[in-house]
Amino acid sequence: MSRNVLISGYEVFGNNTMNPSLELIHCLDGEVIDGRRICTVEVPVNRHTCFETMEKAIKAYQPELIICTGLADGRTGISIERTAVNVADFPVPDNAGYLALNETLEEGGPAAYFATIPIRNIMTAIREEGIPAYISNTAGTYCCNLLMYRTLHYISKNNLGIPAGMIHLPFLPQMAADMNMVPASMDLTHMVDAIKTAVHTALADPLDRAVICGACQ
Amino acid sequence: MSRNVLISGYEVFGNNTMNPSLELIHCLDGEVIDGRRICTVEVPVNRHTCFETMEKAIKAYQPELIICTGLADGRTGISIERTAVNVADFPVPDNAGYLALNETLEEGGPAAYFATIPIRNIMTAIREEGIPAYISNTAGTYCCNLLMYRTLHYISKNNLGIPAGMIHLPFLPQMAADMNMVPASMDLTHMVDAIKTAVHTALADPLDRAVICGACQ
Amino acid sequence: MSRNVLISGYEVFGNNTMNPSLELIHCLDGEVIDGRRICTVEVPVNRHTCFETMEKAIKAYQPELIICTGLADGRTGISIERTAVNVADFPVPDNAGYLALNETLEEGGPAAYFATIPIRNIMTAIREEGIPAYISNTAGTYCCNLLMYRTLHYISKNNLGIPAGMIHLPFLPQMAADMNMVPASMDLTHMVDAIKTAVHTALADPLDRAVICGACQ
Amino acid sequence: MSRNVLISGYEVFGNNTMNPSLELIHCLDGEVIDGRRICTVEVPVNRHTCFETMEKAIKAYQPELIICTGLADGRTGISIERTAVNVADFPVPDNAGYLALNETLEEGGPAAYFATIPIRNIMTAIREEGIPAYISNTAGTYCCNLLMYRTLHYISKNNLGIPAGMIHLPFLPQMAADMNMVPASMDLTHMVDAIKTAVHTALADPLDRAVICGACQ
Repeated sequence: MSRNVLISGYEVFGNNTMNPSLELIHCLDGEVIDGRRICTVEVPVNRHTCFETMEKAIKAYQPELIICTGLADGRTGISIERTAVNVADFPVPDNAGYLALNETLEEGGPAAYFATIPIRNIMTAIREEGIPAYISNTAGTYCCNLLMYRTLHYISKNNLGIPAGMIHLPFLPQMAADMNMVPASMDLTHMVDAIKTAVHTALADPLDRAVICGACQ
Repeated sequence: MSRNVLISGYEVFGNNTMNPSLELIHCLDGEVIDGRRICTVEVPVNRHTCFETMEKAIKAYQPELIICTGLADGRTGISIERTAVNVADFPVPDNAGYLALNETLEEGGPAAYFATIPIRNIMTAIREEGIPAYISNTAGTYCCNLLMYRTLHYISKNNLGIPAGMIHLPFLPQMAADMNMVPASMDLTHMVDAIKTAVHTALADPLDRAVICGACQ
Repeated sequence: MSRNVLISGYEVFGNNTMNPSLELIHCLDGEVIDGRRICTVEVPVNRHTCFETMEKAIKAYQPELIICTGLADGRTGISIERTAVNVADFPVPDNAGYLALNETLEEGGPAAYFATIPIRNIMTAIREEGIPAYISNTAGTYCCNLLMYRTLHYISKNNLGIPAGMIHLPFLPQMAADMNMVPASMDLTHMVDAIKTAVHTALADPLDRAVICGACQ
Repeated sequence: MSRNVLISGYEVFGNNTMNPSLELIHCLDGEVIDGRRICTVEVPVNRHTCFETMEKAIKAYQPELIICTGLADGRTGISIERTAVNVADFPVPDNAGYLALNETLEEGGPAAYFATIPIRNIMTAIREEGIPAYISNTAGTYCCNLLMYRTLHYISKNNLGIPAGMIHLPFLPQMAADMNMVPASMDLTHMVDAIKTAVHTALADPLDRAVICGACQ
């Protein structure tokens, strides 16, 4: 077995000047957690090429765990996605200028996949560190959902058995500081610690303990 | 064919003294839209019996269209649900005091179903009447999602071919007027008009036209 | 005594195509409440002329009560303003393209005036009708605050003793229906009823009863 | 002159287990900024004693600058208050169980005081460091507003000429991590850096430069 963990981040998109998920993978690349090496991949915000980049990384690193990360505007904490749906319905064009409208991601694919990482345990473990976190019931219908869906579909179709999921990040403070509406934000250090905890939890404790989840949004 | 349309609403639950979906079905019951009779059913907020009530109504009315409705705290407009997921993960107990934690709704069922009503056309038609509406990407993990999922599963499993979906409603003004935080609300008249428009649109125009959906949440 | 009540509304501004306060005064003009005639005035969204328009109306109608109304983006209910401050600090230019930055409204004037209408009783009376309402602690620093401040200053300086205040209104549903973010809104009928109740309460019950105000924002 | 700067923080109150303003003064006490010593005072959340504690600290330290700090639920950034009003209207009881309802703070006092620190320059300087900040137009009607009002009134009445203001802080991450609704939060390090910048700016640059303030809330 490879002893690799793959973490993806996205390039900058839209009106943003940074992407917290890109900063995150720069911080995590090459780290070792519980004996596994963290490998990272920067994914384009592109309807047609983002999963291809991921697929190459999966083939190159043969990971035993995959966590996709991305920015979600206005989130107030680390949000661990429960579900990816078989649709692309973009609120804004991707970085190539393409606006997907109600498109099916995989013809004949299931309507949705659930994350195969222990989302509830990850939420609990991150909160126990003092970092705000919750389970999110929608990853949207933009590129993050697309990457999560197609990654889970690829793993399923090829019987790879790799646990995988998507974790959305809030704005970085320096991004929020440039915006008039001043959205919620989170320090990069906390994001890095949260993702390390997610990796550790997913490796150590793959089955969700039954605990009350008042924190789903 | 029956020439019936079935619309469900929920009983009052939690700390609420009313439920807009219950008021709504009282207003709509017996109405005729495009030659179809509106039949309604009041569904209990109960993990174990809510779908049974719906199933009886489906058998009794043999509807050609089903629209479930329910209250979603804090929504600012009519929200047409895109997806129902195969999970019950309750933020609060149901009316029988039961708290579902990360339960599968249908063993062996798909992770999700998409609504089979034209959600985009419905949103557009309601907005064209001057009533706020948007497509919602999550129906939550409480009873509304449960009812939507199990209704779509029942239709699928039995090859009934009935278009079905779920539409969430904001608080009524008189509910918001009793709350210190003063959440968003909508007049019952607008809700009734919106659901009539949804019925008309689903009957007349079952295929979604490709229009830009900037209003998904 | 004149037996007149003066209610102001604002013209359309910014990106909006309507202004609920303008629709409101069209509905109320000429109505009779508790024996008083409702007189109305449309005020320009203009740093330099909005109060002049109000002053002319005060001289013409000699009202025994003045209620200014205006639109406040994103409010979820009728919001009765507590305070107007001696500053113009515009988030966007006025309708003449003028952007006031940290300007004093009245040199030598007090930092603020409190509304001289019974804000708490008005809130309670509107809520008792089933219409969402709350006390707002800031009227902002745009034209609405300006009009409220200069009206109260004019009344004070000239010892007119006319009770006066400002009530902010949410978006109308048809405005929210055109916006992607779908802000909270309120039906015009409810706004009209709420302002009638405010007039009645201010005429009948000028002293605020001591009740718990959990609804201040 | 004393070469002291006085910064106040509040004790824990309500359902909270921490108060960021208390953590903040523990971090800042004894620091030296631009040759001034930072003196701090912990103020009780008490209608009747909070200002007395402040008054003693003013007499003891003879500061050349006063910045009050406190927690404001749900704020997304450092919020620099523009105004304090002559009213106590508590949403919840204070730590002694006292619920002030529409009480005047100072009989015969002005309706409001403006902060006498350069709020706009402070906002700009904090943002230039990459920390979210904005000007707030209401400090509420609880103890923070009370402390700001009475401090400015005391300075004015006694002709002390000390610049003074109030800066509200978001929740700390570890507080938000314990809450189901997951409100916005900010790291303590950023709060400390922001208040240091506020002190430096108020000492160096007492007159507000005219810059566009799109970030007022």
